[in-house]
Amino acid sequence: MGRTKADDVRTVTIALLGFGTIGSSVYSVIQKEHDAILGATGVDLRVAYIVEKDFSRAGIDAPAHLFTDDFQQVLDDPLVSIVVELIGGTEWAFTFIDSALRTGRDVVTANKQLLANRGAALFDLADQLGRQIRFEASVGGAIPIIKVMRESMIAADLHTVYGIVNGTTNYILTAMYRGEGDYEDTLKKAQDLGYAEADPTADVGGADAAAKMAILASLAYRSRVTMADVTYEGIEDVALDDVQYAKQFGFVVKLIGAARLIDGRVNVRVHPALVPENHPLASINGSYNAVYLKGHTIDEIMLTGPGAGGPPTATAVVSDIVNIAGTDSAGFLQSCTCYKALDLCPDLEMHSAFFIRFKVGDQAGVLAQIASIFGEHDVSIESMIQRGHGDEAELMLITHPTMERGFYAATEQVAGLSCVKSRPMIIRVL
Amino acid sequence: MGRTKADDVRTVTIALLGFGTIGSSVYSVIQKEHDAILGATGVDLRVAYIVEKDFSRAGIDAPAHLFTDDFQQVLDDPLVSIVVELIGGTEWAFTFIDSALRTGRDVVTANKQLLANRGAALFDLADQLGRQIRFEASVGGAIPIIKVMRESMIAADLHTVYGIVNGTTNYILTAMYRGEGDYEDTLKKAQDLGYAEADPTADVGGADAAAKMAILASLAYRSRVTMADVTYEGIEDVALDDVQYAKQFGFVVKLIGAARLIDGRVNVRVHPALVPENHPLASINGSYNAVYLKGHTIDEIMLTGPGAGGPPTATAVVSDIVNIAGTDSAGFLQSCTCYKALDLCPDLEMHSAFFIRFKVGDQAGVLAQIASIFGEHDVSIESMIQRGHGDEAELMLITHPTMERGFYAATEQVAGLSCVKSRPMIIRVL
Repeated sequence: MGRTKADDVRTVTIALLGFGTIGSSVYSVIQKEHDAILGATGVDLRVAYIVEKDFSRAGIDAPAHLFTDDFQQVLDDPLVSIVVELIGGTEWAFTFIDSALRTGRDVVTANKQLLANRGAALFDLADQLGRQIRFEASVGGAIPIIKVMRESMIAADLHTVYGIVNGTTNYILTAMYRGEGDYEDTLKKAQDLGYAEADPTADVGGADAAAKMAILASLAYRSRVTMADVTYEGIEDVALDDVQYAKQFGFVVKLIGAARLIDGRVNVRVHPALVPENHPLASINGSYNAVYLKGHTIDEIMLTGPGAGGPPTATAVVSDIVNIAGTDSAGFLQSCTCYKALDLCPDLEMHSAFFIRFKVGDQAGVLAQIASIFGEHDVSIESMIQRGHGDEAELMLITHPTMERGFYAATEQVAGLSCVKSRPMIIRVL
Repeated sequence: MGRTKADDVRTVTIALLGFGTIGSSVYSVIQKEHDAILGATGVDLRVAYIVEKDFSRAGIDAPAHLFTDDFQQVLDDPLVSIVVELIGGTEWAFTFIDSALRTGRDVVTANKQLLANRGAALFDLADQLGRQIRFEASVGGAIPIIKVMRESMIAADLHTVYGIVNGTTNYILTAMYRGEGDYEDTLKKAQDLGYAEADPTADVGGADAAAKMAILASLAYRSRVTMADVTYEGIEDVALDDVQYAKQFGFVVKLIGAARLIDGRVNVRVHPALVPENHPLASINGSYNAVYLKGHTIDEIMLTGPGAGGPPTATAVVSDIVNIAGTDSAGFLQSCTCYKALDLCPDLEMHSAFFIRFKVGDQAGVLAQIASIFGEHDVSIESMIQRGHGDEAELMLITHPTMERGFYAATEQVAGLSCVKSRPMIIRVL
């Protein structure tokens, strides 16, 4: 049958900023899929510039003549209609995107930190100028969660977004669950395999996931949520014991991003959580990501896939490019300014169930004392395991959902008891 | 912050054809989400007509004055810009959609049978006229698989689409897996709970899933696949024994739709399959649906959610309506005519692993005879269990992947052996 509109070919000239893992994959996916995309959509993708300080791959992974270290050259070339920002960071990237928009270009970016910290100014600018910013690759690699949130969940009446949006931490926690080692061992292994960076702070500390959750929360509730609005904890303090004890209770420990709408207020945070083993998120293993959506009209939807990696992330970037080429102007579905300004719900007003583990001395009435303190703060205990005896005894509790303020107050008091021999380890239960 | 383009309100006048479960849910979701959609997108959705022969719900679930049994009234009203076809069937629905397109309307439909059987003519017409047909609700209820396939998987280089796309059969097979009864018992239960229709033929026989897979295959490989191109089997012959034995081998039996691209040829079919219990599709339970995509650049992506039900399906319909309002013309991403005409790969040339179960007589050398026949046809056995003894003995085998032609030839020969006492039950292994 073939294309019936063979002469409707639309040439799209692209500048790539940054030629690291993602940048070079974008280049290679464009080359590889060029003809298929042209055949299917009539879009003829052409990379005209690769803006990069490091020319070491020039002529090897892409023709040398495409490389430049001068972004002004791109701005001066009227043929360039889409600028793809893959340099990361929030300073230069901001400047480049700002100038690209002001000179009439649409922008594709994978820069979650930039969007979560300074997105509002860029989105407002794009909207004023009638330009698009697309950012499918900023969350979940190849998982098309941005498009789904923006364009498909319009009538879903979302109230909960859970994400496993950091592959490094999910790899580590999966390995700990499988008994392959403690946090240090499995982090080392993740680094050896390329799943964790030499400096893993942003991943293991939760900042990477927090930026992604700020983006997802903004889309889910159409309210501007920035990095500063997200509380986050990492997995550095999660002990192998926690993971293994949780397993005995029937839970899998995951680093969960949670964005909730509660009585018109938004709460967004990232923290380790005990996920019940029959919850769909419990089965997301290794470096895979997943986003789980709950809404009043959709019940629940989950999307899963590789959360990182050159080619998967590149497919998200390339689909953004082709989608821009396929929409004549900034469609309102892409608008990021039609937003409400919802209040935030403070963490201490949230209701959560908790897992707590601490060492207790060998005294009579230990449990009675602890239970009485929890009771005073309306914290009710759902299950309890005591391990060992004498000064080796360890107590693990899981509470019913309770307002966090009361729980933390109770835990402070419990920690002060003479029979309690260690700082309590606390992990929320999903 | 609020909308910055508050005066860009776009009124969209809609006619709903059909007011059954989905139709009435669409009406109610539009009423419920009207203000949120208006606030977020500037689209003011108005249902002006409900075309329905049965007026029993007029005035109860929607104002009586909206009801009409005369579609011509809709066609004569220049304000109507979108026609939503939810009457089902392939005759009237075709006529209505055809006239809606010819009179300048865009169309939303959930009608998988129509699209899988007669979609080409409608898509061609829509394309000629510059109109859109959207059909998110035709596959997977609230799961936005159509948009993802059309707009996000552009550079994914897909080669495999597996779907659990029929909730009724998945409900039944899940219940059988959990030991809640045999096929008849669990079908009855599904009917009592509203997960299966009084006449369940289209669901349990595989035709419903086949239509959906024709649609997904067309989008995945950009080749027109119609219902006639899809081979399908249902679950009527799956015995509780099969499900329970499969469980012992480490498999879950599911009704799987599989659309594959093999050396440039397409094969699409629906059949029960043994899914390894660690495969993501194995954990899709009850009436849930899932679509699992594999592509050279994306690795794998899975989308899960409720496959049916009024409100979830209605959210898909409403998102289609808003998406049409958000795209000025039929974007090429929605074009369904830019298609290749790929050849089909015959089933017998496919490679599959198989589970086989049959009764064998109590004779010496039974296994040797069977193994020798399989060997002659290049079918190698991966695992085997024999249960019982004497005339009650039952043999279960799982083969390595093999060309189906050879496997079926071997099985015919085996079935003819005097020591084989029952027609072999055969289920593919995913």
